[in-house]
Amino acid sequence: MAACTVHTTTQFLNTQCHISSSSKSHLGHFPQKQQLVIFRRRRSSQCVITCRAVGGDHDQTVVIGLAADSGCGKSTFMRRLTSVFGGTAEPSKGGNPDSNTLISDTTTVICLDDYHSLDRNGRKEKGVTALDPRSNDFDLMYEHVKALKDGVSVEKPIYNHATGLLDPPELIKPPKILVIEGLHPMFDPRVRELLDFSIYLDISNEVKFGWKIQRDMAERGHSLGSIKASIEARKPDFEAYIDPQKQYADAVIEVLPTQLIPDDNDGKILRVRLIQKEGVKHFSPSYLFDEGSTISWIPCGRKLTCSYPGIKFSYGPETYYGHEVSVLEMDGQFDKLDELIYVESHLSNLSTKFYGEVTQQMLKNADFPGSNNGTGLFQTIIGLKIRNLFEQIIASRAKTPVGAAQAEREPAIVHIEKGRL
Amino acid sequence: MAACTVHTTTQFLNTQCHISSSSKSHLGHFPQKQQLVIFRRRRSSQCVITCRAVGGDHDQTVVIGLAADSGCGKSTFMRRLTSVFGGTAEPSKGGNPDSNTLISDTTTVICLDDYHSLDRNGRKEKGVTALDPRSNDFDLMYEHVKALKDGVSVEKPIYNHATGLLDPPELIKPPKILVIEGLHPMFDPRVRELLDFSIYLDISNEVKFGWKIQRDMAERGHSLGSIKASIEARKPDFEAYIDPQKQYADAVIEVLPTQLIPDDNDGKILRVRLIQKEGVKHFSPSYLFDEGSTISWIPCGRKLTCSYPGIKFSYGPETYYGHEVSVLEMDGQFDKLDELIYVESHLSNLSTKFYGEVTQQMLKNADFPGSNNGTGLFQTIIGLKIRNLFEQIIASRAKTPVGAAQAEREPAIVHIEKGRL
Repeated sequence: MAACTVHTTTQFLNTQCHISSSSKSHLGHFPQKQQLVIFRRRRSSQCVITCRAVGGDHDQTVVIGLAADSGCGKSTFMRRLTSVFGGTAEPSKGGNPDSNTLISDTTTVICLDDYHSLDRNGRKEKGVTALDPRSNDFDLMYEHVKALKDGVSVEKPIYNHATGLLDPPELIKPPKILVIEGLHPMFDPRVRELLDFSIYLDISNEVKFGWKIQRDMAERGHSLGSIKASIEARKPDFEAYIDPQKQYADAVIEVLPTQLIPDDNDGKILRVRLIQKEGVKHFSPSYLFDEGSTISWIPCGRKLTCSYPGIKFSYGPETYYGHEVSVLEMDGQFDKLDELIYVESHLSNLSTKFYGEVTQQMLKNADFPGSNNGTGLFQTIIGLKIRNLFEQIIASRAKTPVGAAQAEREPAIVHIEKGRL
Repeated sequence: MAACTVHTTTQFLNTQCHISSSSKSHLGHFPQKQQLVIFRRRRSSQCVITCRAVGGDHDQTVVIGLAADSGCGKSTFMRRLTSVFGGTAEPSKGGNPDSNTLISDTTTVICLDDYHSLDRNGRKEKGVTALDPRSNDFDLMYEHVKALKDGVSVEKPIYNHATGLLDPPELIKPPKILVIEGLHPMFDPRVRELLDFSIYLDISNEVKFGWKIQRDMAERGHSLGSIKASIEARKPDFEAYIDPQKQYADAVIEVLPTQLIPDDNDGKILRVRLIQKEGVKHFSPSYLFDEGSTISWIPCGRKLTCSYPGIKFSYGPETYYGHEVSVLEMDGQFDKLDELIYVESHLSNLSTKFYGEVTQQMLKNADFPGSNNGTGLFQTIIGLKIRNLFEQIIASRAKTPVGAAQAEREPAIVHIEKGRL
């Protein structure tokens, strides 16, 4: 076990696990550049004490926030992201089969539903939705993200979507890339501050309705009436607590009905906008033809033929919640491989490593929803952007002075019976 | 004097100058690959007999047709074209000071008004406009263009715009590039057939009215009422005889009021469309970003700032009188040099010889009308296209078998008293 110093942010910890300074001696000597962190193990009599490095000279976890309503394609996005890194995100082996966590070589995706402070019954009793901040433990969320970012393992609760109950926690080790996905990754200012990059999936009501029906009716056996009622019931809280987070996102993927077919209500063909914030460190927006100008482009023509209603791209500078952004838009869908590669060849600043990598990713994951439209395309591009961001952060650390202390990637964990310290 | 054979197309010549086969002996022996051509010298008792080479193996003149109503920028276009070739088109020294012909090292521009068969009084007497084919001698026009194209000098009449009379003819030697500009270069099918490239300047009524006022009032001292009356009087014939020629043009420059300012009636800011026919030999249309697709582009943005109302480009495939065309459009005007070079750097297939040549040409001729808008830009591009076309024709001739006879560039001319043959 590594020796530790007392952590300075104990005010966020559950008071059941506070540590008296006289107890320090029980834990031995704490060398410089190490800190002690303690967490209460939920619904157990144990406290967890770990050590973490102090300062920015360790192999810090890159933290990505992904916000969206439920049923809005977060998990597809995650699968695309981990695919970009060459791995497959899977539930931890031997753990709770209802765990929401997905782990790959580089990436750990945690679902923020796990920070529900109220389970389904609790919410029902108090008359609050899962969208309401009162149903969520932001203190613990912050503490965990901060710990993981600093290279410290945490014992994260599990919200069981099947039962609606909070299951016993699972151990989360600090990954290279931590993705926190869910309803509130940018809600709490402390959590927001920890994010190296943030994405908001903004699905318009028309499209969301279509998707929900498909997922909740077909896959989860809900009735049309209950879906409609659920959407209506969620609306006020969604607008109050979820939607405003998009102003903080570095990238927003906005999904709207097509404009290629007048008065289209089918909702099968989508117009997707990738809103990219300017001036974000390690993030350089993708563009079409001429960076910073305003362009519309219908690639279908003499060189490329497309089936009805075709494909239309747009690009240009805009202002979004007072921020300068560059917006890349795709309306329509790909029918053939040559359309996809043709489009890719005319997009710039994609952060690919070789010509055609976007197309290769889209083909590799052709069975994922949205692989023939802007959702898949822009999710893939954002995946590449995150890889690029990660590599830039790693590279910038490699430039720090030689001899800077490197913390161990696997901090020790001490289990202490409640009240024993 | 070169010996000649009797020309086979005597049916188009003025009967006063027909030549009997018995007269052939007067002219001596006619070697193979030579033909005799005779023309009546207008209002004189002389016939002109010249020799020309037979077949396509001589240094044939490239013929360009430029059609437009009067006061529509033909002369500015011609100055831009000759500027591209590095020379200045000037009236022939020592000739009729009212000659309409402009001559540079490479290019001779003849005004088709010179083929008016009726002078101003004659038209008044017969109640026909200059636009009416009956006011024009298409037989002579054809014969002259054909002769010049074949390397034969001609004695071309001069229509004196100052007096409204037909002046004594002037000698036109076959140039490298012959431009026939005026009301009817594509009207007669025989003349049309001789054109290697044709351009129509299509000025919308709103813009034309503004231009006519500026030129005819300011420069020619006409009254507003007389200009309006003249436009109205010309309209039916214009629509019957001039306008339909645009369907035959390889390139049309369409000049319209801006769409950047809603309901703009000022007419100072122009929307200009360059309609480029597809499949024309030695002519490859210019394009924006992606050949054959449909694009709109507002270059003014983060990298380039423009003053109100900005600049907007469009590009795309269209159908024009049943032909496939590619249309490049510019709305707005350049205020600064950096706007011009920025735009040039994003246009492709300009047939320039070095980066920035379009901008250089536009700056060199900055005092020409339209140098800050699409008329100047597209006239310059078409000038470069004509240079390219000329060079391609020359190059394709250079590939013809060595040993093919080369005709002399200065055919002999015989003057024969009327009736002497």
